Amino acid sequence: MNEQPASAASQVLQSVRWAGNALDLLDQRLLPERIVYLKLRTPQDVWEAIRELKVRGAPAIGIAAAYGVVLGIQGFEGDSEAAAAEAVRHAEYLATSRPTAVNLFWALDRMKATARRLAGSGVAGAAIYDSLLEEAQRIQAEDEETNRLIGENALTLFQDGMGVLTHCNAGGLATSKYGTALAPFYLALERGIHLKVYADETRPVLQGARLTAFELHQAGVDVTLITDNMAGHVMSKGWVQAVIVGTDRVAANGDVANKIGTYSVAVLAKAHNIPFYVACPMSTIDLSTPTGADIPIEERHPDEVTQGFGRRTAPEGVAVYNPAFDVTPHELVTAIITEKGIVRAPYDTGLRQLFEQ
Amino acid sequence: MNEQPASAASQVLQSVRWAGNALDLLDQRLLPERIVYLKLRTPQDVWEAIRELKVRGAPAIGIAAAYGVVLGIQGFEGDSEAAAAEAVRHAEYLATSRPTAVNLFWALDRMKATARRLAGSGVAGAAIYDSLLEEAQRIQAEDEETNRLIGENALTLFQDGMGVLTHCNAGGLATSKYGTALAPFYLALERGIHLKVYADETRPVLQGARLTAFELHQAGVDVTLITDNMAGHVMSKGWVQAVIVGTDRVAANGDVANKIGTYSVAVLAKAHNIPFYVACPMSTIDLSTPTGADIPIEERHPDEVTQGFGRRTAPEGVAVYNPAFDVTPHELVTAIITEKGIVRAPYDTGLRQLFEQ
Repeated sequence: MNEQPASAASQVLQSVRWAGNALDLLDQRLLPERIVYLKLRTPQDVWEAIRELKVRGAPAIGIAAAYGVVLGIQGFEGDSEAAAAEAVRHAEYLATSRPTAVNLFWALDRMKATARRLAGSGVAGAAIYDSLLEEAQRIQAEDEETNRLIGENALTLFQDGMGVLTHCNAGGLATSKYGTALAPFYLALERGIHLKVYADETRPVLQGARLTAFELHQAGVDVTLITDNMAGHVMSKGWVQAVIVGTDRVAANGDVANKIGTYSVAVLAKAHNIPFYVACPMSTIDLSTPTGADIPIEERHPDEVTQGFGRRTAPEGVAVYNPAFDVTPHELVTAIITEKGIVRAPYDTGLRQLFEQ
Repeated sequence: MNEQPASAASQVLQSVRWAGNALDLLDQRLLPERIVYLKLRTPQDVWEAIRELKVRGAPAIGIAAAYGVVLGIQGFEGDSEAAAAEAVRHAEYLATSRPTAVNLFWALDRMKATARRLAGSGVAGAAIYDSLLEEAQRIQAEDEETNRLIGENALTLFQDGMGVLTHCNAGGLATSKYGTALAPFYLALERGIHLKVYADETRPVLQGARLTAFELHQAGVDVTLITDNMAGHVMSKGWVQAVIVGTDRVAANGDVANKIGTYSVAVLAKAHNIPFYVACPMSTIDLSTPTGADIPIEERHPDEVTQGFGRRTAPEGVAVYNPAFDVTPHELVTAIITEKGIVRAPYDTGLRQLFEQ
């Protein structure tokens, strides 16, 4: 057991930071080469940051969008009714930034509910602003606590010495602190439990290489970077005892939408008898979406595939298919790990019970 | 049916071209952005070109290496004995350039056998040179005919309208003309049979994006580029009816070494009940290698993963695993397609019979 820093996750850069009258946002597109915080001052700034993946990760998107609503009514001079209407308008606009992550809509719904609660109360627009800011900060603080609980629950599934593979980035950069899928790695490190992490680089935007490998390596977690197509080979070598990933939306039947490539990893895990875990806050579970087939899958620009690294790596004019997500059917999911506990099949009843607790 | 060019494959750039007293080699590292032919004048030049993947693809490596031996005794002034010894020495040096592709050793063995046949015959070194050049040219010409026959055999497995996925580049650029795995696509195009090809980009060196998508798109084949981690998703959509790949070595039991990621594709194909075909010349089948476990797997530099695109995409100092190949066990291989015919399980007897024909 090596001596480890007291709190590994505290070394992870904060992706979203409220700065009094603006939102400081870590531009994740520039990592790991450059650490640049952008100052966002309008809902439009936030919309573009989400759209262009400067901020990504389902929980972080929700938090950023919540602050986007706050920015929208900053300095608003009307009454409570008008301020609330304005907040709702900004929330609805921000909801159009990306289609798949349900946390985005969940956070914006909370902001809308807060605004509507105060609408017509006769208080000044400034009071609505204060309430919305508090709500956004509450969403962020809750997320941090949620992450810790997810990590605690996930850690019960891992033992010292295990190899664990993850895909994309569901870490501190995707959330407010520990991350979801990466939370158990930080907790394990703090407690001297050794886990050997394999990080898929996660083409096309390389969140695994640029973000997961970056934040885990920086924190001192034992992480090995591989290309996506090495996952099966690494599993066949017997080096992986568990897979854990985050998710952008869980349907009522347990189907899971996550970064493109997650489905392939789940199929490979099953073929090698490796458990496949999904970690997420309750806010990612959407009981109003019956199955994975009902989750809209965002398709993104071919340039991410053909020239995602500053130079062209494919011929001009070639056809490209670039879905940002795929759906892993619940049959391939060993367990879903939330802040409220671990759910296993049958998911339809298990997930419902979790909300009824 | 669209009108198609008379010979699609004739539009593919030739990767290896004898130029009278030097070897003109297409630098595949620069594709698709730049088409640059290098002039190689020494065995060292050829060794480095193979090592650095300027030329790649099992058959093309074998052809380039054969010409490398020729370059080694160009202008040699000794007698036949000395010239033959010199040729053998160069062949043995060239065999150290890469460990996995058996065609390299096969081609060099042919060159050594030719040299030894003439050793001590009393002819001048120049006559040995002529014989070795003829042998290298014969290897190249045979490869072209072999490719065509592989294509014909593979095409019997495909029907008009099928979606076919391929990994890495086993095309015209990897061989002397049609390629192995890509040969049926060129023949189909010439005959107005429509196949929809999905090309995995094939990280880390992107031979699928840079080479397969490039040569098929240039020839007019219907090709769609995807990232490696999309293969499972595309299969789950029902868009793929067959997978076909090349190989660097087939063991006696039918295990197949090929570009990293091939194994994952084979597992995914099996999970979706999609046939998984391997196309190769007989020279790629190595009966002296009992199983895939006996095939040495080259590990390459981490930089290919961390900064393969001209800019750094992973943190400094992070651990990387970068095997260039993986082994697909014969259980996952539906058929092996050669110039002599199609072999199915049991491979140990089937492959042996092919050599006895």
